[in-house]
Amino acid sequence: MVTRGANFKLSDKLREIKPIIWQKDKIAFLDQSKLPWKEEYLVCHNYKEVAEAIRSMKVRGAPAIGVAAALGIALGILKSKKKTTLQLFNELEVMVKVFKETRPTAVNLFWAVDKMKKKGLSFLNFTPKNFKKFLIEEALNIFNEDIETNKKIGKLGIQLIDDNDTVLTHCNTGALATGGYGTALGIIRYAWKKGKKVFVFVTETRPLLQGARLTTWELKKENIPFSLITDNMAGYLMRKKEIKKVLVGADRIAANGDVANKIGTYTLAILAKEHSLPFYIAAPTSSIDLNLDSGEEIPIEERSSVEVTHLAGQQIAPDGIGVRNPSFDVTPHRYISAIITEKGIVYPPFKLNLAKVKNS
Amino acid sequence: MVTRGANFKLSDKLREIKPIIWQKDKIAFLDQSKLPWKEEYLVCHNYKEVAEAIRSMKVRGAPAIGVAAALGIALGILKSKKKTTLQLFNELEVMVKVFKETRPTAVNLFWAVDKMKKKGLSFLNFTPKNFKKFLIEEALNIFNEDIETNKKIGKLGIQLIDDNDTVLTHCNTGALATGGYGTALGIIRYAWKKGKKVFVFVTETRPLLQGARLTTWELKKENIPFSLITDNMAGYLMRKKEIKKVLVGADRIAANGDVANKIGTYTLAILAKEHSLPFYIAAPTSSIDLNLDSGEEIPIEERSSVEVTHLAGQQIAPDGIGVRNPSFDVTPHRYISAIITEKGIVYPPFKLNLAKVKNS
Repeated sequence: MVTRGANFKLSDKLREIKPIIWQKDKIAFLDQSKLPWKEEYLVCHNYKEVAEAIRSMKVRGAPAIGVAAALGIALGILKSKKKTTLQLFNELEVMVKVFKETRPTAVNLFWAVDKMKKKGLSFLNFTPKNFKKFLIEEALNIFNEDIETNKKIGKLGIQLIDDNDTVLTHCNTGALATGGYGTALGIIRYAWKKGKKVFVFVTETRPLLQGARLTTWELKKENIPFSLITDNMAGYLMRKKEIKKVLVGADRIAANGDVANKIGTYTLAILAKEHSLPFYIAAPTSSIDLNLDSGEEIPIEERSSVEVTHLAGQQIAPDGIGVRNPSFDVTPHRYISAIITEKGIVYPPFKLNLAKVKNS
Repeated sequence: MVTRGANFKLSDKLREIKPIIWQKDKIAFLDQSKLPWKEEYLVCHNYKEVAEAIRSMKVRGAPAIGVAAALGIALGILKSKKKTTLQLFNELEVMVKVFKETRPTAVNLFWAVDKMKKKGLSFLNFTPKNFKKFLIEEALNIFNEDIETNKKIGKLGIQLIDDNDTVLTHCNTGALATGGYGTALGIIRYAWKKGKKVFVFVTETRPLLQGARLTTWELKKENIPFSLITDNMAGYLMRKKEIKKVLVGADRIAANGDVANKIGTYTLAILAKEHSLPFYIAAPTSSIDLNLDSGEEIPIEERSSVEVTHLAGQQIAPDGIGVRNPSFDVTPHRYISAIITEKGIVYPPFKLNLAKVKNS
């Protein structure tokens, strides 16, 4: 049963944004569907609840759902009543399948659960107790490494941010979208902490308003100055020369450098090109999928029409109308200036350089 | 006092959408801030109420606010207690000033009230009774001519719509945005009535959702098939070749063909160019402002931040944050394939051809 932690306490150590907290026999997720109205943790007691939290986007953002899925599998294994290691592994395989069916576009989810499965395979001759113990350790490694990875992205990416820069970002790529800290927003966060004066334009990011609800909430907590805009205002501000660069995240990067990211990213890339502005992607190497030659092969999730016709429970369009709701789009690599990963900033030719960074 | 006409009856004749109704000593506006939730008329009994209805966008759309302002002045003159024609004219001048301060971008408003003033000047030797009578007649002419103009735009524009076409439109340019019938949406309406199978993609048009609330409502009434999308989905659908052309309205057209229109139009024009799609403007010649050399000179209204941070009364972003809210943007003429007016379809070179059509 999912308990809603109205009285779930943040320790002093957790004053910084902690989107995901592993708590021995349960996982707490800062419920992103409730922000910024309520800062409330959703506590999951079994892996199915974690899968549902991913599906319903209570936890979202490519790196965050990778971490959540790995921890979800660890929780499932921990709670399993199976007696033998092989039975536990068979159950792990079921869980992997369940998580892979939650959301199709972000590759980090597949990367994380496949990593858990591979580890499980290598632990087959362990005792059931150790099988559980080491799988939990692996999930916590994935979690902690994600935060470290983000900090490395921040440190590397800062060289692309100038003093007095104005940066447009889309959706939410902050602490909430990751294990912590953030990718694109992590770079902005790091630049700000290092004393660079940076001003952020935040697109609200319809339909689910991750920009308006989550990115503004994170920036406000850090006192980083910003303006919220609707998605259709970016072109106007570029033409007025108020935006100097675009910096966004990624849900999946194909071998040729094409990038799937939140719907609207492709439009921002075209706008950046038209105004001769740099367009940067920030993502961990776990978002790179060398199995796909190009972005055309990335599956694009289409979600419920209700996300478009309703907003925070309020109906905003007539009943019974046709709606399209692709959650992501693909930006061809030719629009991308650079991809900032934890292992280095990747420039064109992406096909060559992404393979290098992925395999390094 | 403004009375909200919950029991304002539509006559049988008014089954078609009537956004504005002149009723001898009052004006009824179909309250666009209430649609699609309620079909309710706002009844204005004096010119100040009409000005406020324009300011608060209960009546909106460039041609509609021109008509509303002309009728508002007629109502003000009708209700005036002044004894002499000169006193009436002086009061008319005050009203012209009030209306000119309601909204800055759409030129139709200025065109309509200047036309009323010019007529008033030519009626200075009339009796007060006739001064009133002929000014009301003039306002009703502006109203009726707007509907006729739109129908002409529809008839001319239909040649740009193919059978089985898919057209993207932005904001609302239908009956609601005009005296009746519509400009860009009028062309779609006319094409549909003439049996052309056309499918419409409707951008929701944040912040005030004229697409989601009003265009869907009009298309549904006409049974014209459509899909509603968020503003940031247009690029994705163009790349998928699901959109074949873009057709939007205008709030002001400069002498060189630059067009001010609802925020987001400029972005759609860039997207159309990038995907080699035609980008059409539909507007009456009253939207052409030959006094301005280029779009750079068109004043762009910035409205309240609440329009961005709230939606239908629901807060969607944290308190106390920075917001930008330009209501319009300017699309340079080089992105525009053609401008459809009631006097003909204008192609580049726009500077030459707009002057011709405006002065014809």
